[in-house]
This record gives sequence, structure tokens and C-alpha cells, in this order.
Amino acid sequence: MEKVWNGWGEAHKQKPLPAIAHQVLTQLLGSATPLPEASLEQAASRLPPSRLPEHELYHIDAETRVRYARGQSLPDWLAFKAGEVGVAPDAVAFPQNRDQLEQLLAFAGKHNAILIPYGGGTSVVGHINPCAGDQAVITVSMERMNRLLSLDTTSQLAWFEAGVRGPDLEAQLNARGYTLGHFPQSFEWSTLGGWIASRSSGQQSLHYGRIEQLFSSGVVHTPQGPLSLPSFPASSAGPDWREMVLGSEGRLGILSEAEVRVQPLPEQERFYVTFFPSWRAGLAAIREIAQRNVSASMMRLSHPTETSTHLQLALPQPKLGRLQRLFRLLGLGDEPAMMTWGVSGSGRQVRQSRRAIKAIARRYRGRLALKGLGDHWRKNRYSAPYLRQSLWQHGYLVDTFETAANWDKVPALQVQMEAALKRAAGDTPLLCYTHLSHVYKQGCSLYTTYVFPAQADFQASLATWQKLKAAASTAVVEGGGTISHQHGVGKDHSPYLHHEKDPLTQAGIQAVFDRYDPQGIMNPGTLMERL
Amino acid sequence: MEKVWNGWGEAHKQKPLPAIAHQVLTQLLGSATPLPEASLEQAASRLPPSRLPEHELYHIDAETRVRYARGQSLPDWLAFKAGEVGVAPDAVAFPQNRDQLEQLLAFAGKHNAILIPYGGGTSVVGHINPCAGDQAVITVSMERMNRLLSLDTTSQLAWFEAGVRGPDLEAQLNARGYTLGHFPQSFEWSTLGGWIASRSSGQQSLHYGRIEQLFSSGVVHTPQGPLSLPSFPASSAGPDWREMVLGSEGRLGILSEAEVRVQPLPEQERFYVTFFPSWRAGLAAIREIAQRNVSASMMRLSHPTETSTHLQLALPQPKLGRLQRLFRLLGLGDEPAMMTWGVSGSGRQVRQSRRAIKAIARRYRGRLALKGLGDHWRKNRYSAPYLRQSLWQHGYLVDTFETAANWDKVPALQVQMEAALKRAAGDTPLLCYTHLSHVYKQGCSLYTTYVFPAQADFQASLATWQKLKAAASTAVVEGGGTISHQHGVGKDHSPYLHHEKDPLTQAGIQAVFDRYDPQGIMNPGTLMERL
Repeated sequence: MEKVWNGWGEAHKQKPLPAIAHQVLTQLLGSATPLPEASLEQAASRLPPSRLPEHELYHIDAETRVRYARGQSLPDWLAFKAGEVGVAPDAVAFPQNRDQLEQLLAFAGKHNAILIPYGGGTSVVGHINPCAGDQAVITVSMERMNRLLSLDTTSQLAWFEAGVRGPDLEAQLNARGYTLGHFPQSFEWSTLGGWIASRSSGQQSLHYGRIEQLFSSGVVHTPQGPLSLPSFPASSAGPDWREMVLGSEGRLGILSEAEVRVQPLPEQERFYVTFFPSWRAGLAAIREIAQRNVSASMMRLSHPTETSTHLQLALPQPKLGRLQRLFRLLGLGDEPAMMTWGVSGSGRQVRQSRRAIKAIARRYRGRLALKGLGDHWRKNRYSAPYLRQSLWQHGYLVDTFETAANWDKVPALQVQMEAALKRAAGDTPLLCYTHLSHVYKQGCSLYTTYVFPAQADFQASLATWQKLKAAASTAVVEGGGTISHQHGVGKDHSPYLHHEKDPLTQAGIQAVFDRYDPQGIMNPGTLMERL
Repeated sequence: MEKVWNGWGEAHKQKPLPAIAHQVLTQLLGSATPLPEASLEQAASRLPPSRLPEHELYHIDAETRVRYARGQSLPDWLAFKAGEVGVAPDAVAFPQNRDQLEQLLAFAGKHNAILIPYGGGTSVVGHINPCAGDQAVITVSMERMNRLLSLDTTSQLAWFEAGVRGPDLEAQLNARGYTLGHFPQSFEWSTLGGWIASRSSGQQSLHYGRIEQLFSSGVVHTPQGPLSLPSFPASSAGPDWREMVLGSEGRLGILSEAEVRVQPLPEQERFYVTFFPSWRAGLAAIREIAQRNVSASMMRLSHPTETSTHLQLALPQPKLGRLQRLFRLLGLGDEPAMMTWGVSGSGRQVRQSRRAIKAIARRYRGRLALKGLGDHWRKNRYSAPYLRQSLWQHGYLVDTFETAANWDKVPALQVQMEAALKRAAGDTPLLCYTHLSHVYKQGCSLYTTYVFPAQADFQASLATWQKLKAAASTAVVEGGGTISHQHGVGKDHSPYLHHEKDPLTQAGIQAVFDRYDPQGIMNPGTLMERL
């Protein structure tokens, strides 16, 4: 299974852009010219030599260093495709056990080298990108530590090596009748350790819980030695130190192993699509479902713009036409908002939840509960990242950003986020649309996708992205949203962190980093600038 | 509403011990001689003079200093009743707003005085007891900061001053149709700030969530200035600093205000009692209910010893005799285990949950679902602390301890906890019994009550308690339980904290304390000894 070196996933899973999608995009954004793609050899040839000597602990060949140099943000893509990855690690290590991890920490401490923990390399905010500087950098890929070490079916706990990727984790659990239920869009490549270090949330976190709820204990290898967390269902004995590890983004050390709360595979798991006459109606229905303790496994509401874009891309014309006629017949108007939702559990639980959700939806004039479109969502739940390459090949660049906010702020925030993007785009044609997902009683996340044509060259494309990203991030924090609900901080979001973590909070976090990593060798520049 | 100065609650709510209960205790423990009770005046007269000058910020009269000197642990009771409270604060402050809090922090910093935040004084592990030392101590009672400041019914958030007690908090919310749903046994006197600082858990936390889930944001006044937490439904932007405040036990600063997640009062709230032929059968049923996502609002399983003790105390003889005949008729044997459980929500949700719980219980030979005994539990849910005084008056001392552990450890832990107590008691007659409650998919809490006759004098009684407490705590941590599921660490549990917080974890927590409180004036000696 060979990963594409300069994009997402495996080569054989890449799909051409459907003709209809290309047609729609050309109408909306004008035609575009794809940027060229450099080869891996070209990119490797442009790297400066490693500043580290040969050593059995790591690899220093240029191709490996290029492959692990960057993540999956749009700037990362531009850098990979241009064959100019910028700052690359001096070495890449592939430890196979905790001893080798400890050796790496000792080596790095002795040589004052920086360590960057690397899970699946799926970060979209620069978590694993080395910063320029005088210190040598070793990227530590955890991919060879991927085993299920034990499963306690009484307490429903599974102990994994932290480098295990989503599909391998689920396969090892599923074989025993269990699941973790953590399905972020990056599922196919992201890892357990990465989920924990970046406070990840899965598409069905409403049912299975965010990674904060799933992570019960583990071992973090810090420059001061290994730190072990205890395993309890709950405790009142002081601050919960799991929560310091969650979201630490490699700044404390490297997570070698983690215990997670698992559960038996659900008897049934169903997905449906319902339509509302407006965003506002759908929003009210979803809030009520969440606040009334009706147990959905997921809820997602596409704004009318996203709805029509997705339907245009998903359905061939005659089918789409029939659906649009049905919308009008059902009083949904021309621009309904699409709600995708799921229910999981025993047969009886699924029936009861489905009935309760449909009843509330009906009160807000929600219509239909199409299992076909629900199944379509399930089948394609991890395919969006592949679409980036299909769009790339036609000269279109795509990026996303997300936040979470309290319900009272959600309607205005959605408007402001899109308006800020469009203002920042200026004359550059821009398509953008939003959905809400990851629903809580207190609020929900908002997730915005935007597409624009590649500019004249890589640099101009990057400059346009920077303008858009800054505008979007500012709109998010000024509108009362968190700078990230599920992607983390990395380097791209750290300038905005002070909006939610005040100076004393940052000082407290920094005090912990300083205690565990006095040399400052653990992934510096990520999450927070040194105070 | 005058609080009893040397015991629990209000004088007019004290109840005499039922004759039958006295008879049962005399059978089990022999007769006992009550210890004398000193008056408040006597206790006050024995205090050394305050080391602080008169000041408008606080009170220094001896009676006030006695009242706020200790909490509600058994050693605290012995000290109060003996009229020898030991180390008392030099002053007690009653700030009315954030400005006055800041003035107190400035005053304490300038005079190197210790500050002890005081909620309802309900700690049973010494959180608010001053340590002996050279520094003057100011206890800061938050009781005058008790208002609801705002309620957002869209995002279901309520912003309170942190000194609000349980009944006042619920009354202010209930008047608007809302509830927090946090009902610890100390509910009548404990405060929102205390719940947060000690990581409290309510009797219906299964439905409403532990305080960790309910606390969404707030303001902590540290010696370095006020720290503000943001309000989001969820965030992946770095470590969640709420979790550093939760369980900080006054070591970071004083929580002045807190935002909590509230919800509409449930349409229905029902409680039932079901009986199982054995502890083991009840345990298996409860684990299955929790792990199958059946939504109970609470589940509690009394071990047969606790069951028979409670029934003897609750029911007059003819009624008890009829119930015991019914047990035999239903195949429950002579010593069934009593499960108390609740369901909350809409009428339909309550019906569905009740049906699902009864179906699982039946598969483990659980019989009956008595609403009368459920209502009895509800009516008496906060009465156990009053029973201490009734027992005291007959010469019996009572204490409790609790833990939480993963399901695989629960059966052995329950046996070991009780065995350790009995071994430590030696020749002292001892009655002890256990229930499980606060159920999670991963495990549950265990809560043990023990009663023994007062010894010849206060000192001998304290010495016996110390022996029992040490034995119980050791059994808890050696059996894989947390040193506390819901009472916190305070001073009594801090010698055992290292079993679950390893040296690096404690070092990280200490680094935060040092950053916010470099002088070490915030409640020192609580939670952790300085490293």
C-alpha cells in the first residue's frame, strides 16, 4: 500500500473529476490551468544535505526526508507539488518499540536535536512541519508501532501502540467484535497517537465520543522520562492529566501506547438524509434533537449552497431533476438544507431513535429520510481528500476550515465566515459553502469548504491562500468560535490561540512544557510560541 | 437558616435514631457510650489569638474562626465535638464581589498570608483545614457570592457566582424551568465552586454528567491575576485548561464565577428499587445496562449486607417481614442485593428506558421494580449526613470512603476493602457495608460505610479512625482503585496520590501551581505536598 508522496492516500484510489462537476466549476469559477507537479526525485535533489550523521536510529536519505517533511494543508500540497518542500527534517526515525523511542530521546537530548512526532502525516495545520533554525530535526514516524497489545472485554478497554492507523485499529478490534468508533475524515491514514495529540473528533463522536472520552490512559515519553497515566472510569483525585496530553501536539513528548474505551460493534448502524426548507429550520431541529437527549450517532446539516453543490456532484442529471421536482412538491423550495444523520445500537434502539428524530424533524418541516443518500454518505465518508487531487488536475485548489461555537453564535458566525472569505478573495473567483456537524447541547461545529482557481504560479497561489486563511481565522475568533474544533492548532492556528487561551492559561501550559522539556526540543513552534 | 456549628446541617432537621436501628446496632456492635460535646464558647475560648490585625476585609472573632476551621470528616467532627479544633484560620473573609476577592489576594500576597477558599465546608478529606505553620491563614468563604448572573436558554448555559449552594442554584434555575442536575449527597450545603474545585460527582451523574461535563467556563483569581476560561461546546485548540481548574482544590486560586451547562427540567423523573439474588448478579446486570447505552439516570447496587442494614433501618418490622417472605417466594434468597435506579426524560423516554432496564435485570434474575422504595430513596437522598448525629448521640461513630475502578477489578476490590477494615479494627466491633454507584462503561465507584463504637475518649477514637482510614486507603490503591472518585484528595488522601499520579505528573501539576502562586500561599498542603 504505497502512499502518494505529494498528496492524499493511495494512487489506485484516485478518481477523475466527474464531467458534470467540472462543468459546474467552470460555470462558477471560470476555467483554470493546473499547476505543474515536480517529481519526488526533483524535490529530493533540492534538499540541503542532512545535518545529522548516519545512525542506525534513523534514515537520512533525501527521498525519505521529503516524504515526511510536510502534512496535508494546502500550503503543504503547494510545496510538495512544486517540489520545494522548504525545511525538511534532517532524519526520519521509525522506532519499533519503547526502547528505541527512549534511545531517540536520549540522542536528541545529547545532540540538542529537535524531535517531531509523526503519526499519519495528515495534519492540515502544520503540526509536523519543521521550523527553520540551527538545530537538527528528527521526525519520528510511529508507523511501525501499530499493534493491539491487549483487550479487556469486561472493562471494554483496548491497549494499542500509538502509531496504529484507523483501518488497522478497527480491523484488529472488529476481528474480536469490538470497535472504537473514531472515524475522522482522515481515518484511513491518521493514527491513534495523532488523534490524541491533536484532540481529534470523529464523524460519529455524538455516539462514540470525542477522543477525549475514548482515551483512558497511556504512556508519554518525555525528555525527562516516561510519564504514565492511570486507568480509571473516573476520579476526583486532582486535575485529570490525560487532558494535558490531549492536544499537546508533541510538545510534551511522544505517546508510545494508549488505552482506549471500546465497545461491541453495534447490531445496527443506519444513515439517512432529510431535507429542510431552510438552514434555519434544520438548525432548530438539530439543536432540539441534541438538547432533548435523542440519541443520534451523527448529525450534519449542509447549508443550501453546500446541499446543491453536493447533489450536483453526486447525482446524474435525470435523478437530480426528479429530486428537485420532489423538493418543490414537498414544499421544500428550490434550495433546501440537507441533513445527514445516523443511528446506531440494537434494533430496538435504532427504531426508537429514528422515530424520535423524524418526529422532531417533521415539526420543523423536515421531509424524507432517504436511506439511499445516507448510504451514499457512508460509502464516501473518507473520499473528500481524494477530491482535492481530482480538482488539482483541473486547476482548482480546495481548502477547508472549521470551528465550534455556542448555539447562540452559530447563525451569525456562518454568515461572517463566508463573507470574510469572499471579501478577502477580491477578484479571485471563489466558491464556498458550509455545514454544521459534531453537535453538542451547547453548540456545534461549523465546517467551511472553499474552492478557487490556481493562480499564475505556486507563490501567487500560496499568497491567495494566506489572505483567505487569515480572513477566515479572524472571522472565526471574532465571531466567538474556537480556532479549531477538530484540526488542532499546529503552526497555522497558533497566532489566533490567544483569543481563547488567555496569557495566564498559556503561561500555565508553557510551565508544563518547560518542566518536561527544558531544552525545548519537542516540536517547538507548534501549538504556542515560546512565551 | 442556622448551620449546626459542630456537625451537619440545620438543628431542626436532626432526627432521633429509630429504636429499631439502635437495637440492631447494639446487637452488632455492643452498647456504646457517647462522647461529650463542648460548646462553641468553650471551643472559641481555647483558640490562640488571631495573628492578623483587624481589617474590613475579614472577621477575626474566635467564634467565626472556629466555625470555619474544619470540614465534615470524622476527625473534624471529633475536633469540633471535643471543642479542640486545633489549627484555626486567623481570619475569615466573606467577599461579596470580584473586587473584594482581588483585594484579599493582594492583601495575602503582601502579608505572605495563606488563603483557603471555602465553599460549604462539606469536605470530608480536609480540603479546608489550615495547616500548622508560621504564616497567618485567611479562610475565604464564598457564601455571599451566590447569584445567577445570566441564563442563555439557546446554548443552555447559566453563569453563576461560585459560592452558590446546591439548593439556591437549583431554585434559581428551577424558577426558569431549568436544572443543573448536580446532586451530590452534600447538595444542601456544598457549592458550585466547591464541586468544581474538588471534581464532584452527583447522584444522577449518569444522566446529567459529572461536574467535569457540566462546567463550561469561569474565572479563577490567582495570585498572578485573574484567569478566564473560554466557553465552547468543544475545542481541539490545545490542552483543555478547564481540566486543570477541576480538582485544583484551591491551589491555583479562587473561582469567583462559573458557567455551567443546564437543561430543561425533565418531564418525568422516576426511581425504582429492584432486587437481585446476589451481588454478582446485580453487578453483571448493571454493567450490561451501562455498556448497552441504556439511559438510566442513576444506578446503585447495595451489597447484601448494606441491603439488609438499610431495610432494617427503613422499614417497620411487619413490613420488613412481608418483604422478606416475598424475597423467598421470588427466589431471591435471604440476602438479596438491592438495586436503586432512576430514569429521567420525556414520558416516552422514561417508558423506553424503564422497559429496557427491566428486561436486562430480568435476565440476571432481578425481581420487582418498587416505586415506593424508589420514592423513599429520593426523599432521603440527602439524609445520610444527619444520621451521623443520631448515631453520635448513641455513642456510634460513622465514616465512609469511596473509590472507582475498572469493572474487572470491582469484585475483588469490594472484598479487599471490607477485609482490610475488619483486619484493622482488630478487637473493636465494626459494622461495614458497600454499594456501587456512579456507573460508567469502564467501571463504577464503590462506596463503603463503617460504624464503630466511640472509644474511651476523643484521642482513642481518632487513633482508631486513623488505623481504619489507612487500612482502607491502602486497600483501595493496592486493589487498583483511585484514591477518590468523588471526595477529592484534600489532606487525608494526599499520601496515596502517588499511586495514580506518577512523579512526572505531580511535577507537571506543581509547575502550574508554582507559575500561578510562586509564594505558595494558595491552600498549601492540600492535594499535593510541595515536591
